[in-house]
Amino acid sequence: MRNLRLDICYDGTRYRGWQRLAGVDNTIQGKLEQTLSRILGEEIEISGSGRTDAGAHAQGQVANFHCESSMTCGEILSQLRRYLPEDIGIYSCREVQPRFHARLNAVRKTYVYRLWNSPGPCVFERRFVAVDPRKLDLEKMRKAAAFLVGEHDFSAFCANKKMKKSTVRRIDRIEIRQVGQEVRFVFVGNGFLYNMVRILVGTLLEVGRGEREAESVPGLFGAKREEAGALVPASGLCLMEVEY
Amino acid sequence: MRNLRLDICYDGTRYRGWQRLAGVDNTIQGKLEQTLSRILGEEIEISGSGRTDAGAHAQGQVANFHCESSMTCGEILSQLRRYLPEDIGIYSCREVQPRFHARLNAVRKTYVYRLWNSPGPCVFERRFVAVDPRKLDLEKMRKAAAFLVGEHDFSAFCANKKMKKSTVRRIDRIEIRQVGQEVRFVFVGNGFLYNMVRILVGTLLEVGRGEREAESVPGLFGAKREEAGALVPASGLCLMEVEY
Repeated sequence: MRNLRLDICYDGTRYRGWQRLAGVDNTIQGKLEQTLSRILGEEIEISGSGRTDAGAHAQGQVANFHCESSMTCGEILSQLRRYLPEDIGIYSCREVQPRFHARLNAVRKTYVYRLWNSPGPCVFERRFVAVDPRKLDLEKMRKAAAFLVGEHDFSAFCANKKMKKSTVRRIDRIEIRQVGQEVRFVFVGNGFLYNMVRILVGTLLEVGRGEREAESVPGLFGAKREEAGALVPASGLCLMEVEY
Repeated sequence: MRNLRLDICYDGTRYRGWQRLAGVDNTIQGKLEQTLSRILGEEIEISGSGRTDAGAHAQGQVANFHCESSMTCGEILSQLRRYLPEDIGIYSCREVQPRFHARLNAVRKTYVYRLWNSPGPCVFERRFVAVDPRKLDLEKMRKAAAFLVGEHDFSAFCANKKMKKSTVRRIDRIEIRQVGQEVRFVFVGNGFLYNMVRILVGTLLEVGRGEREAESVPGLFGAKREEAGALVPASGLCLMEVEY
């Protein structure tokens, strides 16, 4: 069996997220598996580096799949580009070690969250941002973000209430930058729980609006979901990179 | 009567172009007039700096309109932002001299044409580019572009065969740059004929692909439409700026 790696991007606006769902046509994984199965003439199952939420995007999703076909990687790539919808793109398709697994081998991920923080028009970016023109104190938000960096129990930032596995994750870096009319958040870490980035942003925004103290953040580690901030919209979220 | 100026942007993908058409709902001008008329409670007609093609975009369209209403510019702006669809944006609304006319007073316009010149995915830019991965010789294209700069009879670059007015226009500057996987064309001039930018790009692309000599360009001035290059898709075209 060959093991092939795909580097993928998508505009997630019209999808129900990455993960294949029984009876649901519009998931990224489902669309990729369906297209690959047709191209290769065999049943293909792919493993992504992780799920992305309904409506969230990816510029650097990675997946792998096993196949029997002897079709060259170049041919698979051009067939995928031909048959995939225009909101899913493939950067590359290449042969990898038999043991490479897109999820299990991922060591670091980078997410970006884009907030359009202005009443001005965001016509050209509208699919890839969340909009909230309320004023933000970026310095306070950076102070709060500094508390989040490191290895912590992010239970309060996980929307899966039945999560039985560890909710401990390590965040290596958080950047908060003004880019024109946007506030752009970058999160780098070894892994992120269900909805974690969006709840982190929601919590930081509450600090930025003066509704929560930066110093209250350490008290959220190991706490319940209700104690952290609100979930922000998926449209602003993009998986930028997965490192192996 | 007050005279108000609007600075406007739009994603033209789903529109039949700028100009209001009888019986057609989806034009930018029509949408703006309809919305303004409702907000102000009087029949509003707007003048744009010029028409843009069906499917073409604008980041810097300018229009003006006269009204009796005493509503403040700030209020009109926020009402417009509230009621316009998300693919039309308003940067500003301001009171101007009674004699200001968005079309008649325009002295210079800048258009950008974006060509996605790669087989790689353009998922995030797909609404704002035309795609053609064929190889291009940018140096030859720049050489051809240099012939176009200046005041010339651009009859061959005008799709309106019944054009009775002068087809003489002045191009001040043409830039052709590689920006990542894109080739980006910038055109600055005192005015552009119907489809002119798209035919200029089509002609330059023929030079870039070796199908036409750069030196043949001066022979196109005053010539017939058939002698210039093909019309390229509207999706790559954006009106960037109008100067007064």
